[in-house]
Amino acid sequence: MGRQKVLLDKMARFFRIRNLLLRQSLAECLGTLILVMFGCGAVAQLVLSNGSHGLFLTVNLAFGFAATLGILVCGQVSGGHLNPAVTFALCVLGREPWKKFPMYFLFQTIGSFFGAAVIYAMYYDALCEYTGGFDINGPNSTAGIFATYPGTHLSLINGFFDQLIGTAALIVCILAIVDPYNNPIPQGLEAFTVGFVVLAIGLSMGFNSGYAVNPARDIGPRLFTAIAGWGGGVFTIGSGWFLVPIFVPFIGTMLGVLIYQFMVGFHVEGEARDKRGSGPENVRLTNVNSNNSKEATKEVN
Amino acid sequence: MGRQKVLLDKMARFFRIRNLLLRQSLAECLGTLILVMFGCGAVAQLVLSNGSHGLFLTVNLAFGFAATLGILVCGQVSGGHLNPAVTFALCVLGREPWKKFPMYFLFQTIGSFFGAAVIYAMYYDALCEYTGGFDINGPNSTAGIFATYPGTHLSLINGFFDQLIGTAALIVCILAIVDPYNNPIPQGLEAFTVGFVVLAIGLSMGFNSGYAVNPARDIGPRLFTAIAGWGGGVFTIGSGWFLVPIFVPFIGTMLGVLIYQFMVGFHVEGEARDKRGSGPENVRLTNVNSNNSKEATKEVN
Amino acid sequence: MGRQKVLLDKMARFFRIRNLLLRQSLAECLGTLILVMFGCGAVAQLVLSNGSHGLFLTVNLAFGFAATLGILVCGQVSGGHLNPAVTFALCVLGREPWKKFPMYFLFQTIGSFFGAAVIYAMYYDALCEYTGGFDINGPNSTAGIFATYPGTHLSLINGFFDQLIGTAALIVCILAIVDPYNNPIPQGLEAFTVGFVVLAIGLSMGFNSGYAVNPARDIGPRLFTAIAGWGGGVFTIGSGWFLVPIFVPFIGTMLGVLIYQFMVGFHVEGEARDKRGSGPENVRLTNVNSNNSKEATKEVN
Amino acid sequence: MGRQKVLLDKMARFFRIRNLLLRQSLAECLGTLILVMFGCGAVAQLVLSNGSHGLFLTVNLAFGFAATLGILVCGQVSGGHLNPAVTFALCVLGREPWKKFPMYFLFQTIGSFFGAAVIYAMYYDALCEYTGGFDINGPNSTAGIFATYPGTHLSLINGFFDQLIGTAALIVCILAIVDPYNNPIPQGLEAFTVGFVVLAIGLSMGFNSGYAVNPARDIGPRLFTAIAGWGGGVFTIGSGWFLVPIFVPFIGTMLGVLIYQFMVGFHVEGEARDKRGSGPENVRLTNVNSNNSKEATKEVN
Repeated sequence: MGRQKVLLDKMARFFRIRNLLLRQSLAECLGTLILVMFGCGAVAQLVLSNGSHGLFLTVNLAFGFAATLGILVCGQVSGGHLNPAVTFALCVLGREPWKKFPMYFLFQTIGSFFGAAVIYAMYYDALCEYTGGFDINGPNSTAGIFATYPGTHLSLINGFFDQLIGTAALIVCILAIVDPYNNPIPQGLEAFTVGFVVLAIGLSMGFNSGYAVNPARDIGPRLFTAIAGWGGGVFTIGSGWFLVPIFVPFIGTMLGVLIYQFMVGFHVEGEARDKRGSGPENVRLTNVNSNNSKEATKEVN
Repeated sequence: MGRQKVLLDKMARFFRIRNLLLRQSLAECLGTLILVMFGCGAVAQLVLSNGSHGLFLTVNLAFGFAATLGILVCGQVSGGHLNPAVTFALCVLGREPWKKFPMYFLFQTIGSFFGAAVIYAMYYDALCEYTGGFDINGPNSTAGIFATYPGTHLSLINGFFDQLIGTAALIVCILAIVDPYNNPIPQGLEAFTVGFVVLAIGLSMGFNSGYAVNPARDIGPRLFTAIAGWGGGVFTIGSGWFLVPIFVPFIGTMLGVLIYQFMVGFHVEGEARDKRGSGPENVRLTNVNSNNSKEATKEVN
Repeated sequence: MGRQKVLLDKMARFFRIRNLLLRQSLAECLGTLILVMFGCGAVAQLVLSNGSHGLFLTVNLAFGFAATLGILVCGQVSGGHLNPAVTFALCVLGREPWKKFPMYFLFQTIGSFFGAAVIYAMYYDALCEYTGGFDINGPNSTAGIFATYPGTHLSLINGFFDQLIGTAALIVCILAIVDPYNNPIPQGLEAFTVGFVVLAIGLSMGFNSGYAVNPARDIGPRLFTAIAGWGGGVFTIGSGWFLVPIFVPFIGTMLGVLIYQFMVGFHVEGEARDKRGSGPENVRLTNVNSNNSKEATKEVN
Repeated sequence: MGRQKVLLDKMARFFRIRNLLLRQSLAECLGTLILVMFGCGAVAQLVLSNGSHGLFLTVNLAFGFAATLGILVCGQVSGGHLNPAVTFALCVLGREPWKKFPMYFLFQTIGSFFGAAVIYAMYYDALCEYTGGFDINGPNSTAGIFATYPGTHLSLINGFFDQLIGTAALIVCILAIVDPYNNPIPQGLEAFTVGFVVLAIGLSMGFNSGYAVNPARDIGPRLFTAIAGWGGGVFTIGSGWFLVPIFVPFIGTMLGVLIYQFMVGFHVEGEARDKRGSGPENVRLTNVNSNNSKEATKEVN
């Protein structure tokens, strides 16, 4: 195996990206691709098989495990946000630098675009055979495989609350899981727990519009469908519904951050500070996850 | 990020609640809100979609994961009871002070009240469109989304046994999981295991009346429905059924405590005492969970 | 809480059973009660609700989680076998003394008897209302809620292989999980993994006769149904089927032990022995689980 | 128990296989047998019960947990690949010697052959009674219980992409889980996480042809069905479909390796190398899993 190892070693040296932020963004891209590939793949399987190979439950399970696996793949490199709303929440709380936000958002969107493309390639024959192939409206619509669309009962105002509540619930749970002052689970199980959060949201908040609660997960596949044949109607349907899962999750994030911090976060943080001394900066530096501490070291250099 | 951190720090100092019991009660409130939001949300999704977006299994899964997530969010602060019956069991066994019981009961009820309100807001349009919007009786009843109601086959006596057995089963399993002398699982997995208990109870004991086994989870949403439009009928239906899930769980708790202690608890405790010496107080102080030990320290001060 | 603690302490001293084997048997009894209560409860929920509150999948999930919870409740005391076939396998391999086998078998059967009784009490009204209340035969039979009965397609010979293969699969997996020389999972996760084994067996081997693979789980509830009103027909149906899940699992256990030991067990054991020196007794004493080591200490004393 | 232990000890000495590769191959054989037994058993349960005892979801769950249990049984001995594509990926990356590949492939195929045979024996009566017993074509086909067949909508080109994407997704996730430089989960949970990967693939990529993504899992049972009564048609159907799940997974493996290494692997490896010094060989030797390090020791000897 000597030659093989030398070759692999050379490749690793040659292709290694030295810019940390780009490397993290690439990892986010792959993680979000996995999230959308498994998640939207389950919707495709449910819709295209007319329910013989899926249930709404299988879609929930797939999105939950997809989140877990996406985080596992990229978590050590980039933190495994997979969702601009999560990046936003961590930036708001000062646990990630703001410069990460646009880069992560961009690469998460690219990842989800290609995740949708993979599912399109995988189920191309099935899509063609399915009655109403590239329909956006009606009972045989296939656009809903990729992006989210509001149910017929949903007004835009209720849709606003749907995304607001869904994202706030997501952020409250994620903040509890990753709070350095409130570590409720053994290290290394964060990804699984976040998967359970996504699963729980799908089981209880999926009926209105399909629980996007993630701007990148929604806009990436929507762009793909607009290009791949469903046309511009993916943007005009539902009086501009596509704007709701892009912008409302950030408002929901703010709400979630406030709820968690006022009801739990500030108090556990305060207690930890009282115990360990007065310097909040020191506490923070020793408590951040490995990913950030690396960066901190970089910044110091 | 300098300014942002200073601001966050100021907010943490300003809003921090120094009364431990109030802080713990607030955390219980948020935890129970999450339990009811995800749990009742899954019932809403099942009922309002006429079964297309849910199964009874998804309700069981949602309540199980909701319990897990609720405990994770508040567990480090308050112990994560989410259920007055659990608080009662721990008080009976001397692991929590009795003064916690009324405060926890109150805030758990407030949390479940607002959990129901969140689901009401989220599915407002769907509730309005659903045939029979605010019905309490009949096949299209929506009151059962929030509180529990007995099945048509259930007599009040069998309903008593239903809640008695369900709560006893819950308490036996929870006592085994949190028994400081019988630690069967790695630390940090308690929340997941309690979620599995709730799931198992739902899978096997949910047909009679919907497995409340939790006074706060039932009375909070019931109060909300009475106010929100379903009216006082939510109390009168089933010859006063609403009293059963309030009072019987405490009897079931006593039964569960007795069963667990006589068949397992007293023996493992005795063995541990024989090994470590004669002082039960010492043993207890070193074995309690971190949450209680903090409190013990406070009380000493 | 001073008085309460003194009282609890007195009770613990008074009711503590000092005979280790009896204490372990009591714990097995409670564990098997939990297994049968949750497992058969899920069958009852599926049958009595005519499928509206359950699927065959929910029965599989319930038996899996019931096994996990049963093991958690009693595992630290008795090892958490819940199944005479598992006790038999560990006796055959010299990891448990043979004297445990009859005691465990007896108390596991008592536990499963009362587990069935609990479900009978819980669903008494529903059983009475269900068409064909105490039927053993036919499409509306309710005897299958408690004990297992062969499907109409199943001959006695195929039934023999059904139980043989099912138990062998169970034992191979359990031996791998608890093999002191092949510890594939972090300590404390054994109960969860055994639950997954039971779940996997139910998902793939449940169609023939309902995967008893456990003599105690089958004969206890069968005895209960014979007494509770279904009558002696529970023994005569299927040309004496009730003997199959009592005796065949032990043959399956022998097969499972042989397959695991010849394909994995002997080799990992041999390697461990080569590494640590020649004394197999020493290796064994330091590797056994805490439960056995306690006993070993007792025996030495 | 003295005599019993002496006997067991003698047996262990006598039957112990000293050739490491053969022992590992035997373990792989048992692991793959378990994978196919539980996985195909769930398909059999679904098909033969006409859907009353299964869903497509239960098949997904069974294959997922079957992978977990198969890995747990043999993982400490052989690494728990259960899939020639996984062995291939690890050989390509220099983490397993190439000589393992043909042996593992052979024994994995033997294991899956016998796994299918076990299910055939278990469900022999049900297969005979099922309308169309040994049919390969048509709605009552039973050949699909054992090997995979393309859906009616699937062209050979789309089938190529189906297996390519499925295997690439599997390999990306597995590489992330077992990457010694990117250890995202606590040690000992690898088997569970791989099970979730298999579950996620089944939930989202199972509609086209049943997600073989494993040459051994497909060809072993196919050979068995050809012999057991379904005849040579299992090879000719779908214009030679059987070649797709044998050869395409290796192409998908290459794709998966490239994607993971370029987007995550090379960068985490490079960073680890920079930190720990310049010698890549040293890093590799200390980071390989226990299984390989044993072998390395052997080879040195």
